Amino acid sequence: MIKVGIIGSTGYAGQELVRLLLQHKEAEIVWYGSRSYIDKKYADVYRNMFQLVENVCLDDDMEALAEKADVIFTATPQGFCASIVSEDVLKKTKIIDLSADFRIKDVSTYEQWYGITHVSPQFIGEAVYGLPELNREKIKGARLLANPGCYPTCSTLSIYPLAKAGLIDLNTLIIDAKSGTSGAGRSAKVDNLYCEVNENIKAYGVTSHRHTPEIEEQLTYASGEKVLLNFTPHLVPMNRGILITAYATLKKPVSYEEVKRIYDDCYKDEYFVRVLEKNVCPETRWVEGSNFVDVNFKIDERTNRVIMMGAMDNLVKGAAGQAIQNMNLMFGLSETEGLQLVPMFP
Amino acid sequence: MIKVGIIGSTGYAGQELVRLLLQHKEAEIVWYGSRSYIDKKYADVYRNMFQLVENVCLDDDMEALAEKADVIFTATPQGFCASIVSEDVLKKTKIIDLSADFRIKDVSTYEQWYGITHVSPQFIGEAVYGLPELNREKIKGARLLANPGCYPTCSTLSIYPLAKAGLIDLNTLIIDAKSGTSGAGRSAKVDNLYCEVNENIKAYGVTSHRHTPEIEEQLTYASGEKVLLNFTPHLVPMNRGILITAYATLKKPVSYEEVKRIYDDCYKDEYFVRVLEKNVCPETRWVEGSNFVDVNFKIDERTNRVIMMGAMDNLVKGAAGQAIQNMNLMFGLSETEGLQLVPMFP
Amino acid sequence: MIKVGIIGSTGYAGQELVRLLLQHKEAEIVWYGSRSYIDKKYADVYRNMFQLVENVCLDDDMEALAEKADVIFTATPQGFCASIVSEDVLKKTKIIDLSADFRIKDVSTYEQWYGITHVSPQFIGEAVYGLPELNREKIKGARLLANPGCYPTCSTLSIYPLAKAGLIDLNTLIIDAKSGTSGAGRSAKVDNLYCEVNENIKAYGVTSHRHTPEIEEQLTYASGEKVLLNFTPHLVPMNRGILITAYATLKKPVSYEEVKRIYDDCYKDEYFVRVLEKNVCPETRWVEGSNFVDVNFKIDERTNRVIMMGAMDNLVKGAAGQAIQNMNLMFGLSETEGLQLVPMFP
Amino acid sequence: MIKVGIIGSTGYAGQELVRLLLQHKEAEIVWYGSRSYIDKKYADVYRNMFQLVENVCLDDDMEALAEKADVIFTATPQGFCASIVSEDVLKKTKIIDLSADFRIKDVSTYEQWYGITHVSPQFIGEAVYGLPELNREKIKGARLLANPGCYPTCSTLSIYPLAKAGLIDLNTLIIDAKSGTSGAGRSAKVDNLYCEVNENIKAYGVTSHRHTPEIEEQLTYASGEKVLLNFTPHLVPMNRGILITAYATLKKPVSYEEVKRIYDDCYKDEYFVRVLEKNVCPETRWVEGSNFVDVNFKIDERTNRVIMMGAMDNLVKGAAGQAIQNMNLMFGLSETEGLQLVPMFP
Repeated sequence: MIKVGIIGSTGYAGQELVRLLLQHKEAEIVWYGSRSYIDKKYADVYRNMFQLVENVCLDDDMEALAEKADVIFTATPQGFCASIVSEDVLKKTKIIDLSADFRIKDVSTYEQWYGITHVSPQFIGEAVYGLPELNREKIKGARLLANPGCYPTCSTLSIYPLAKAGLIDLNTLIIDAKSGTSGAGRSAKVDNLYCEVNENIKAYGVTSHRHTPEIEEQLTYASGEKVLLNFTPHLVPMNRGILITAYATLKKPVSYEEVKRIYDDCYKDEYFVRVLEKNVCPETRWVEGSNFVDVNFKIDERTNRVIMMGAMDNLVKGAAGQAIQNMNLMFGLSETEGLQLVPMFP
Repeated sequence: MIKVGIIGSTGYAGQELVRLLLQHKEAEIVWYGSRSYIDKKYADVYRNMFQLVENVCLDDDMEALAEKADVIFTATPQGFCASIVSEDVLKKTKIIDLSADFRIKDVSTYEQWYGITHVSPQFIGEAVYGLPELNREKIKGARLLANPGCYPTCSTLSIYPLAKAGLIDLNTLIIDAKSGTSGAGRSAKVDNLYCEVNENIKAYGVTSHRHTPEIEEQLTYASGEKVLLNFTPHLVPMNRGILITAYATLKKPVSYEEVKRIYDDCYKDEYFVRVLEKNVCPETRWVEGSNFVDVNFKIDERTNRVIMMGAMDNLVKGAAGQAIQNMNLMFGLSETEGLQLVPMFP
Repeated sequence: MIKVGIIGSTGYAGQELVRLLLQHKEAEIVWYGSRSYIDKKYADVYRNMFQLVENVCLDDDMEALAEKADVIFTATPQGFCASIVSEDVLKKTKIIDLSADFRIKDVSTYEQWYGITHVSPQFIGEAVYGLPELNREKIKGARLLANPGCYPTCSTLSIYPLAKAGLIDLNTLIIDAKSGTSGAGRSAKVDNLYCEVNENIKAYGVTSHRHTPEIEEQLTYASGEKVLLNFTPHLVPMNRGILITAYATLKKPVSYEEVKRIYDDCYKDEYFVRVLEKNVCPETRWVEGSNFVDVNFKIDERTNRVIMMGAMDNLVKGAAGQAIQNMNLMFGLSETEGLQLVPMFP
Repeated sequence: MIKVGIIGSTGYAGQELVRLLLQHKEAEIVWYGSRSYIDKKYADVYRNMFQLVENVCLDDDMEALAEKADVIFTATPQGFCASIVSEDVLKKTKIIDLSADFRIKDVSTYEQWYGITHVSPQFIGEAVYGLPELNREKIKGARLLANPGCYPTCSTLSIYPLAKAGLIDLNTLIIDAKSGTSGAGRSAKVDNLYCEVNENIKAYGVTSHRHTPEIEEQLTYASGEKVLLNFTPHLVPMNRGILITAYATLKKPVSYEEVKRIYDDCYKDEYFVRVLEKNVCPETRWVEGSNFVDVNFKIDERTNRVIMMGAMDNLVKGAAGQAIQNMNLMFGLSETEGLQLVPMFP
């Protein structure tokens, strides 16, 4: 039984970790960390957990936690994980960081986009980027795992096959993304009130969203070319789900069948990536509550572009589910343990 | 392994049966019945099932199905189950009927409220009303099980303890109910279009909703008194969830503690009924996706009334989940098998 | 041209006042008060007003405002209006208070339900309760007008005809109310976040909601009997709209036609109250954006009860629209000036 | 008083025409056409119109209508207007067609994208494309007006200034659009049911949406270059609103101020186009219920692209409001008559 500690267990991603881990046969949560709700019963913060979780929320005591837990999930604001990680901690336990602290290899890029100073750059090198479909073997041996961002997971998995195959001109790549509101977190801000989000759609972070360099970095690895792209997220009046619609110019004319084969080959052994059938567009409703990413594409012969699309649940494959997928790999369990969730509809 | 056939597998309740049974270790679906989608791939009707269900939809062939299945779920319009049940079928297989055909013991009441003639009244006597918290022992031996309606499940479980304890004047009972839109089914009607339901709340079936006599019958059994009540459902712009708010005059002054003890005693061994803590109101978000019913009450000394409240997921405890709970009992499995689902939030 | 000052112009009700007054031919807003956004452009707080309102938000300076404005709307928290009203102010200007400070005639009732001390009880006597359909003549001469609460407006107008006619036993009256989320205001609280409200329905303030005594008082006036009732509001995932469903026992059997005649007689000259046709239930979508209240009823012969229903827009007839209706009366304008709004659907 | 006939008055766009015309001082509706609801009271189809519209729905009798009406709005499926227009009709009355029949000058393009044969191609030449901000003078003299599509209106107005100024490479243009569900119409289809649309976002019509050639044609006129672009619409769980996010490569580096000046110059006399301030993104909530289009842009120096954004209400500026704006011009009224609507929020 893996003993799990969660720091930041009362955010939406933290709570999703709790939901999924309660249904995981090989893991047990030993620490519900939450600086905002110290000493409060966890089930009073999230009443879905009534009679399922009896624990109270604890403060962040890294030393105590490192002794107790086989793995620590940090579902915390940027900069927090970097501030608590140390060789001493990593000797005692593994860390799966759901923040961005260790996702980007170039410190200056991180500091520039996030606007904070990285206080533990010495661990960036060893940190493994936790996208199992691209990085499985490295993940197995990781002590410090950087769990990918929600948009980067959906974007990278949707575009990766064609980037790697060299079929698209990556200088033309544009990603238009749409997300449900749980991605904005549980903090009390006017902008996230029901009446402000409902019956509305808006773009935000145009040209400046911090997931941009993370996607660029992964697609640079995949293609061997330096990638610069436009990424525009939009806020959608729904709880969960991310949809990305990506556009790129084809380097040469290709048939549907050729492109389909590339996607199929790339993901034929991947349980969590579903390459849809011809003319079926990914929709967030079909993946809700599950760890699946549905991907597909459409070729436009008129404009010589390919439109790549992906849909997933931002809290599962985009956060907690992927974190557990990584945990499974890091502890030698079956990768799908606790994650064979049938999407819930409607 | 229990072999399961589902007639009406492409309605919302039918699809929820599929979702839950795919995650049930002791059951296997052998028949996806759907008259509307014969020969169509099930996963083309519900794309969440892509790569999870390879079957195509089949017509309703009761004889063939009775040979093949250990249990048949009928998630079909009123009158259908009554039209296909027979001694021959019941000798070969068990039936769990999610329609109202066998819920009401008095045929004339059924025919009056439902406006159809019952074609198999001879089976009403043996049919068991499948509310496990009230009827567990009888369910274990049933061949023909009448799975309760969604509103009756939530209403009965919320009111039952006080009805049985004789604390409330049942002639004063008023149930004001609110339901998400999946309860209206998946048929293409203008009234159920997104733009008609969204940003709206309305009452419907005022004084005439067909779940009224079902609730009255169960509370009559519980109390030993003939119950006549008002039941008013409302349509809420959300996918899932039922909330009931019930009002009754207390026969005599009682304390919070006394009433709490009655609820606790009644449900202390029930995994799926959660009696909430003082002053916590049930909310549908805390039970979504799970088989839980959350109940609580509040005493109003000013008016000498008690307000009883209950929340559950109409597709789970209100339909598919309860049907599986009944199946578990009928086949000697653990009652919670496949149903220990943590509510999904947000 | 009536010069209008608004204190609390950046709450949802305040903003609705702005929206409606901009379309009112005889009024002009001269003061956009908002303690939270002093010196900020109003159109930066509510971007729908871009290029329509050039003003900046001002602090609450009652003296300056009383000199400038013919009427002041206070859309402010409880207790604020009571703290600023004075004989001096009322000599210079009229006040229409959207808070509860002057709605309830009995100070101790106010103080008990609102939990605050009333600092200007000397003005309660002269304050006029601004429900024009009941109180039109008094409103015309008012200096200090208490604009009714949203729930009381909808409840009172739905029940008033039968209360006044003496047809119902007011001791049996139960009001089950449902409201959109704009009623909760624009303050940044976790409970009002999109993900907390969406896909959920809950009761709140059970047995203790502060609109209870206000409704009781108005129905006491209407009936001449002391009324004690149950009022239970629910939060619905939609922006606007209130629906009330009220239950009462009939004192004697009555026909549909008799009751219909009572409603029709009561409201035959009321532009803003629409008595619906037989079997049509009020729905919030049909009144959205307008000052209408749609009312109807249904008799249940089985239980000898009548179910009374009403729907309106909580921000219009429930707040800003009614306040302007009162302003029109107080300034001798046509009562419908600026308020002949066609409900917007969908 | 302009006498107005509406064919197709019971669709969402038709109903919006009714809502707006009821509040228009110079127009009077004399014909509520609706083949689906002949002889039914209009207010029974749209209950918001109760006591506001007493008329019943009439069949499509073009001859009778041409005698009676000064102008006919056709809010009908593609092909209908083409099938009823004739020289005789146009001699008696004006037609404002909300369908696509006369929007595209090249018949073969129309027939190819719409998949139907155009039965009145002889009128395409004289028909005027009714985007007042681009075509005002021609509109004034039109007998047959082609009211633009919703997506083309929002797209063209957002991109037009830079297309005309020659600043962007139109071969790189990509439009990613998002629409509320009222755009899908009021027909009873499973795909438009509440539970199918709610909590979901999806692309549709990828590479094949019929508004594509309409946008291309308008931008070709604006730029003098042949434009081929990608247009991808998405369905958003909300009632109203369209947002477009458009991407194009800049032909040369430009400053924010230069681009801002181009937009400002282009729209300085346009009441209905609001060029937002720096860094403010258009959002649909700020235009709901009004005839405004909010536009803005953002330059990305990293990728040398400009992101152009626009938001409007698809039923107002995208359909009924623009049709009335055109009617005002065609009848010599003030262009804003009946359209100075303050956006309704929330």
